[in-house]
Amino acid sequence: MGMTMTQKILAAHAGLKEVEAGQLIEADLDMVLGNDITAPVAIQEMEKIEKKQVFHKDKIALVPDHFTPNKDIKSAQNCKCLREFAKEYDITNYFEIGEMGIEHALLPEKGLVVAGEAVIGADSHTCTYGALGAFSTGVGSTDMAAGMVTGKAWFKIPAALKFELTGCPAKWVSGKDIILHIIGLIGVDGALYKSMEFVGDGIRNLSMDDRFTMANMAIEAGAKNGIFPVDEKTIAYIEEHSKKEYKVYEADADAEYDKTYIIDLSKIRPTVAFPHLPENTRTIDEIGDIEIQQVIIGSCTNGRIEDLRAAARVLEGRKVKKGMRVIIFPATQDIYLQAIEEGLLSIFIKAGAAVSTPTCGPCLGGHMGILAQGERAVATTNRNFVGRMGHVESEIYLASPAVAAASAVTGKISGPEELGL
Amino acid sequence: MGMTMTQKILAAHAGLKEVEAGQLIEADLDMVLGNDITAPVAIQEMEKIEKKQVFHKDKIALVPDHFTPNKDIKSAQNCKCLREFAKEYDITNYFEIGEMGIEHALLPEKGLVVAGEAVIGADSHTCTYGALGAFSTGVGSTDMAAGMVTGKAWFKIPAALKFELTGCPAKWVSGKDIILHIIGLIGVDGALYKSMEFVGDGIRNLSMDDRFTMANMAIEAGAKNGIFPVDEKTIAYIEEHSKKEYKVYEADADAEYDKTYIIDLSKIRPTVAFPHLPENTRTIDEIGDIEIQQVIIGSCTNGRIEDLRAAARVLEGRKVKKGMRVIIFPATQDIYLQAIEEGLLSIFIKAGAAVSTPTCGPCLGGHMGILAQGERAVATTNRNFVGRMGHVESEIYLASPAVAAASAVTGKISGPEELGL
Repeated sequence: MGMTMTQKILAAHAGLKEVEAGQLIEADLDMVLGNDITAPVAIQEMEKIEKKQVFHKDKIALVPDHFTPNKDIKSAQNCKCLREFAKEYDITNYFEIGEMGIEHALLPEKGLVVAGEAVIGADSHTCTYGALGAFSTGVGSTDMAAGMVTGKAWFKIPAALKFELTGCPAKWVSGKDIILHIIGLIGVDGALYKSMEFVGDGIRNLSMDDRFTMANMAIEAGAKNGIFPVDEKTIAYIEEHSKKEYKVYEADADAEYDKTYIIDLSKIRPTVAFPHLPENTRTIDEIGDIEIQQVIIGSCTNGRIEDLRAAARVLEGRKVKKGMRVIIFPATQDIYLQAIEEGLLSIFIKAGAAVSTPTCGPCLGGHMGILAQGERAVATTNRNFVGRMGHVESEIYLASPAVAAASAVTGKISGPEELGL
Repeated sequence: MGMTMTQKILAAHAGLKEVEAGQLIEADLDMVLGNDITAPVAIQEMEKIEKKQVFHKDKIALVPDHFTPNKDIKSAQNCKCLREFAKEYDITNYFEIGEMGIEHALLPEKGLVVAGEAVIGADSHTCTYGALGAFSTGVGSTDMAAGMVTGKAWFKIPAALKFELTGCPAKWVSGKDIILHIIGLIGVDGALYKSMEFVGDGIRNLSMDDRFTMANMAIEAGAKNGIFPVDEKTIAYIEEHSKKEYKVYEADADAEYDKTYIIDLSKIRPTVAFPHLPENTRTIDEIGDIEIQQVIIGSCTNGRIEDLRAAARVLEGRKVKKGMRVIIFPATQDIYLQAIEEGLLSIFIKAGAAVSTPTCGPCLGGHMGILAQGERAVATTNRNFVGRMGHVESEIYLASPAVAAASAVTGKISGPEELGL
């Protein structure tokens, strides 16, 4: 029986020739990631181990991105814990405010994850690096602690779903629309503990930023991971950002998939997930008039340069609707600088948007844009659960940066086409 | 007996020919200001009044600048209260996220306060507008409520201290250094309930941004207000920013001052206020080695374009010290845009600083840069009280933007001269 791409990567990291779905293995890890919420707990767990050590000082990444710049004393203490741990163990990849970014945008940008690697992170959106042809998945803080010490993690080999992508997405249709469409199709538990393996000649029409967004949201369908084959775009990205050696794995021709979905990208319309689940999707044509008060553009899902460019194409020469709060979060310092130099941030400010320093901020109801009772936001983030962005009686509509920007202008959920774009 | 500048403005607003220190008067108000912390309380008070009304919809300014973009659900609810009040009473000068800024930078920039006016604000740094030759002072939320309804406020006419400024400040000496020097001289209660009246030919060597900083910190010497005479620079500023009619008041030659201080600006050195009072000043030459972990550049005191330019002159082509958190807050959206267009924000990002959207943030321990136990910050803000920026065992050193930027590079409190500048 052949193996999927994910299975091949895991087999190689377990020193096994073959693995099959359901098998328990122990895999060597290429990177262990934590943030200011999860790493302090992992560090506490580590302190319980007799022989305190880390398996490799270069293979741990600590990114204080969630409640930073420090929201309050508690978050300041958590960040201090991270900082002191990084110093004590001489962790190479600790990132301070000012050299930082949102972890899942930062790690690929800094070349810390490449194709063929196995990565765990104490953050559910660690699955983002599947865009690079790596196996990566979110774990709890205790698994992170064990990973930091041993450099290994146990996994049950996941079964897989195959998503065969064909055709070319239309103007204003991005990776976000595609992944929302897919989650709408299969549901938030549609890929429970499975790999979402994206294949097909439609992939060449997707930018790396599209793929990051799609892999990032695999967890929103319950998947263990999402993964893309490595093509010229992947290799160009890796060679631009990293000096690490990478390895290209391909699924066997006879790999087994629980199900295959054929997705014609050219048929997908800009898509919005209604409250309170990412599976509650509607195309932009089925929305009706839904007034909103806030727009969030950013996050590990959609804070990359292409996302900002899309928002800027919509906002250029326009004004956000009077009374609308629009907050734009470039995902990393490098993206922020590039956005300045491409004139994007000027467009945003002239349009009447606020631009924040990189932080996870409002996505998780952390800070920097929390919703009051009865308020509605269009957000390019990844979750629209009850109370996720603030008050339990607030609502989040998930969308692409282009839809979010257009909605900022009209004051209701709108596609760019509504502005004649 | 002649009157001081402050006394003349108050007399005119009370419809009186003469007033004297200690006299109680009722003055007409030209502007009543509140923010997201103080205005909700004022609005609550207003609701208790039988005939709900505001005295003038153009003469109230509401600026949600403290815990915004919304830090949490509570701040979101407070901002919602402000927003709904502004809508119900058709308040002209309500500013939303994205068109906003820190209130005391925003009001002059938007031309809402001009020379000769009487202004109250439910925020202690309302005294900032003394730089424009206006009488302005901080009040509590209940006085703000009464002011919004009646357009009037009771004042006890303040006695005055005269600060005669002579000479020209040296390179790297700014309004911040001058006002810190003065507070060091007279103490945090040195001007209790008095006007600090700045006069003398040294004033022509101070930019408007220097004067805003100095008037802003009058409250840190306990003053009722700080005020500058109106000169060509003031008039140029007002005519650039406002269409309102302004009126120039001058102190009588025989005005009475409790004391006169003669300050030779050319003698002032870059000055730092040590924990935990703004009066604990030392010149940069008397500091020694004090390691710091965070630098904050911004606030109503020092977030204006000249402040950012000074910081950029120091940071250009340099890197902040490894491990240092530097957070820079342009005070308004317009300043943010100008700083992009002048290349200042690019300099900051390249140096390794984070740049935030305008907010009062860390200055009051609100959010966006709170200190952990044992941490030290150099901040261009206005107060260094115990626990002001976070943990009760953290420390704040108040300084100019140039000193803050130099300290960011060296990792300890330093003047630009230490970098050979």
